[in-house]
Amino acid sequence: MIDLYELAGADPALRFSPYCWRIRMALAHKSLNAKLIGWHYGDKRLPGGNTTVPVLVDDGQVIGDSTAIAIHLEQKYAEGPSLFGDEGSMAHVRFIVAWTDTILQPALFPLLGAEVIKHVKPAQQGYYRQTREQRLGTTLEKAAAGAVQHTSTALAAMAPLRSVLADEDFLGGVEPSYADYAVFGAFQWYRVLGAPELLNADDPVHAWRERMLELFDGLALEAKVAA
Amino acid sequence: MIDLYELAGADPALRFSPYCWRIRMALAHKSLNAKLIGWHYGDKRLPGGNTTVPVLVDDGQVIGDSTAIAIHLEQKYAEGPSLFGDEGSMAHVRFIVAWTDTILQPALFPLLGAEVIKHVKPAQQGYYRQTREQRLGTTLEKAAAGAVQHTSTALAAMAPLRSVLADEDFLGGVEPSYADYAVFGAFQWYRVLGAPELLNADDPVHAWRERMLELFDGLALEAKVAA
Repeated sequence: MIDLYELAGADPALRFSPYCWRIRMALAHKSLNAKLIGWHYGDKRLPGGNTTVPVLVDDGQVIGDSTAIAIHLEQKYAEGPSLFGDEGSMAHVRFIVAWTDTILQPALFPLLGAEVIKHVKPAQQGYYRQTREQRLGTTLEKAAAGAVQHTSTALAAMAPLRSVLADEDFLGGVEPSYADYAVFGAFQWYRVLGAPELLNADDPVHAWRERMLELFDGLALEAKVAA
Repeated sequence: MIDLYELAGADPALRFSPYCWRIRMALAHKSLNAKLIGWHYGDKRLPGGNTTVPVLVDDGQVIGDSTAIAIHLEQKYAEGPSLFGDEGSMAHVRFIVAWTDTILQPALFPLLGAEVIKHVKPAQQGYYRQTREQRLGTTLEKAAAGAVQHTSTALAAMAPLRSVLADEDFLGGVEPSYADYAVFGAFQWYRVLGAPELLNADDPVHAWRERMLELFDGLALEAKVAA
């Protein structure tokens, strides 16, 4: 039995965390079912003393941190399709995950912070605002007001993604890999929060995002989106 | 017999092209020897109608474009250690190559353009200046004067590199892959041009660069550096 603790909005059906989406997709890649348990900022009682989601509890074994969870799934469910490929490939995937963490998601965050806070439980909005505004160096609302510039920066940061996806169906080649799920998590975060379309229709990243949304019988496509 | 046409400075011993260094390292990875043929901007007579270096001529077969050359070496010399790993891994490597092309090298170029032109033959300096200043949107010298800001931008752009290399010896894991050679080409470009140290001694990228310089009996370490 597998439990996945994942971030939920004040509306518990709204699941927007990019890190949690990485694991939802990785579970589907391995054809595994998990019980999804919503968690809110400020909720206590995550298993194993973890303070952030996702947290996976697999037959009593507690794993926190999305990359550690993905590696656990790869090793424990080795008979399923591989998430990482061979050993060298895993290091390459870690670069793409690190790029998502350090470049892509920070480039998207100024466009999203003022949306996220609407879906944080009122009691936790102060905490959320304080920590995120410190990271941004400005208020959530001022960051959102700079959307034209931030959109331009985010689209420029996607250059390596665009370059590969002009030639390949997935970052993993003919099949998606964990690299695809890590990057897609950022786009699903953006989408679930109901943010305006970012990509031009002729952008190879747009076509790839459509392919990702259709995987696993539309798993990501059917997720609830903020009104 | 393999010939490699690569960019040479006005001093023909000075070989600074990042794309050519990718192939020098890839040849060494496959334990292949090549005759190195210097080429200058404006020189004619590259084989096969190519207009940029590197160009590889392998037993009469002409291949231009560094990625195409690397794929050729991988396929023709399949018995040697792999440059790319399995098929999925190749797509992941292409992301890292694309990141080098679209993010890392453009971040370093403002720091280097005014150095490169010193090593371009006088007759070609006008061409070089015109094309590069158009790309920069400013003069080579004004870009160089903004070195503090450009250095800060380049170091920030290296975040995913730093993150992976804190845990792994190479981008390819325990052994270098073509991803390492692609990224290293940018650092060797910087180094051969005699530009000032960019990395802090405690940066994981610094330790990795040292490992790269020592590969293949110090192949890159022993390259001539601009005075």
